[in-house]
Amino acid sequence: MGEFDLIARYFQRPTTRAVLGVGDDCALLQPADGMQLAVSSDMLVEGRHFFADVDPSALGHKALAVNLSDLAACGAQPLAFTLALALPRADEAWLAAFSRGLFALADTHGCELVGGDTTRGPLNICITVFGEVPRGQALLRSGARAGDDIYVSGTLGDARLALEALRGKLTLPSGWMGAARTRLEQPTPRVALGLALRGVASAAIDISDGLIGDLGHILSASRVGARIDTAVAAGLLAGDLDGRVPDGLVHHEARLACVLAGGDDYELAFTAPVSARAAVQAAALEARTTVTCIGRIEAAPGLRLVDAAGQPVSGDFASFDHFA
Amino acid sequence: MGEFDLIARYFQRPTTRAVLGVGDDCALLQPADGMQLAVSSDMLVEGRHFFADVDPSALGHKALAVNLSDLAACGAQPLAFTLALALPRADEAWLAAFSRGLFALADTHGCELVGGDTTRGPLNICITVFGEVPRGQALLRSGARAGDDIYVSGTLGDARLALEALRGKLTLPSGWMGAARTRLEQPTPRVALGLALRGVASAAIDISDGLIGDLGHILSASRVGARIDTAVAAGLLAGDLDGRVPDGLVHHEARLACVLAGGDDYELAFTAPVSARAAVQAAALEARTTVTCIGRIEAAPGLRLVDAAGQPVSGDFASFDHFA
Repeated sequence: MGEFDLIARYFQRPTTRAVLGVGDDCALLQPADGMQLAVSSDMLVEGRHFFADVDPSALGHKALAVNLSDLAACGAQPLAFTLALALPRADEAWLAAFSRGLFALADTHGCELVGGDTTRGPLNICITVFGEVPRGQALLRSGARAGDDIYVSGTLGDARLALEALRGKLTLPSGWMGAARTRLEQPTPRVALGLALRGVASAAIDISDGLIGDLGHILSASRVGARIDTAVAAGLLAGDLDGRVPDGLVHHEARLACVLAGGDDYELAFTAPVSARAAVQAAALEARTTVTCIGRIEAAPGLRLVDAAGQPVSGDFASFDHFA
Repeated sequence: MGEFDLIARYFQRPTTRAVLGVGDDCALLQPADGMQLAVSSDMLVEGRHFFADVDPSALGHKALAVNLSDLAACGAQPLAFTLALALPRADEAWLAAFSRGLFALADTHGCELVGGDTTRGPLNICITVFGEVPRGQALLRSGARAGDDIYVSGTLGDARLALEALRGKLTLPSGWMGAARTRLEQPTPRVALGLALRGVASAAIDISDGLIGDLGHILSASRVGARIDTAVAAGLLAGDLDGRVPDGLVHHEARLACVLAGGDDYELAFTAPVSARAAVQAAALEARTTVTCIGRIEAAPGLRLVDAAGQPVSGDFASFDHFA
């Protein structure tokens, strides 16, 4: 199968929102009047972002999900994406499953594939995603102010638990493992929440490298500090399907490390003024996504972890860095 | 050096045209009123698109050039790009040279780096480029009509000669080799020509996989055929710095194969009605780029190669296909 046959068979679909999709030198997008175009790009590499034997359908989902998560963090409505794919070989079963997972998520969000590239090489998936946001309304990392509440969406840490289980470092009961593995391999980008938070949140980011590291980007961009209640944070691990966390299996510190620095969560961390508490809850309800207040922005630089009594909690919760 | 330090040191620069550049979850672009956004994405893989020992500065140039070439083919004005980079290691000398070559070309075209991704992995460079084109004025592959002239810009085939020389398949005199190698490693995207051809050319494409293959895309998108004068085409090889092609070194058929199916040329192939001949010459003059008429679009499907006397020329000039 040649490069152009491969594209035609698995990746060429008619577009309805883009002016021009796959098949010319460029795609053509026409943002609506008054709209800015939000752009983000993520590259996934075998062995680093996914295991070689991952279900290709889940991989297709995840490759787009991590990009949609960036749009969500900006409060942008997904519009289109490009896909560049390096493949060791043209494996039709793999391509069929990968494109099925990819388009299932794309269709959920009305996000059209408009172009890209395919080549032979070590497996590498690079997606660039485009979204629309009304001029001046994008959620940025730089808007947090002292006194703002700090929230996270959904649950944190389960993806990391699944990763450690797949690495053979720990064993999870099967019900828990199934749910955690879905969190790792098929994360849910919080697009609806991002849209609902426009005009409500003061700053936002998506949690890909771990809460502490990513919240740190908000703090430095906003030139503020923060206090996190680790007693609340520790409860953010989803646990098994009944929501219970078997205490004997994962002790408190490991649980906290997964929540604070696990990575691969693709939830949103965001800040909002205290006066917006009702609006935040309304946004969460509208987006059908739970949000939990885990702390407070403070003027003093730095991130302070405290327990339920407000006492400092120590611990080395380094965030995931691809080049550390 | 961590991922964020690497980005800050080599890839974070202030933007003047984009609303928001590197450093948030998304970049923000604001196309001018009445403009459409042209988008293209290309992925370069070591061993397939470049040799492991290529000058990293030239590689930075080429990675962006091949994308700008797609904008040129659409008649779009470069605006911004994202860069996703998988690196086996954070080699500072490599990164400094790569970014120098990249930004030198970017600055030439006022094309800003607005975002991207870095990760560890087999060397892979994926650039997505954005350009502006007035609504409805993009040059497409689908506009060629029977009777149109077929043109190519610049010279063809030298990149392939350099590639074969680097592979040890042939030897070129040093003057010629230097020029040919520059064509291979630092191609010149024909951005100015693409802009000048808006409203003049009926169809256009950039020649990345070889003239025959890429012209074939125009023919199928436009549902037409074509006749190419191989006597004219054979003269498109640049040759040495004086423009001479040593006959003894490369016989006619090999020369023709390089021109017709060499690949990596990054020239434009385009069509224009006979009535636009003066306008084509004016566009070439304005863009300071030579253009050569090499044939004619015909109603009958298929591509016919003919000699100076109009007699059919046979030969297997397959185009480069990454998965063939």
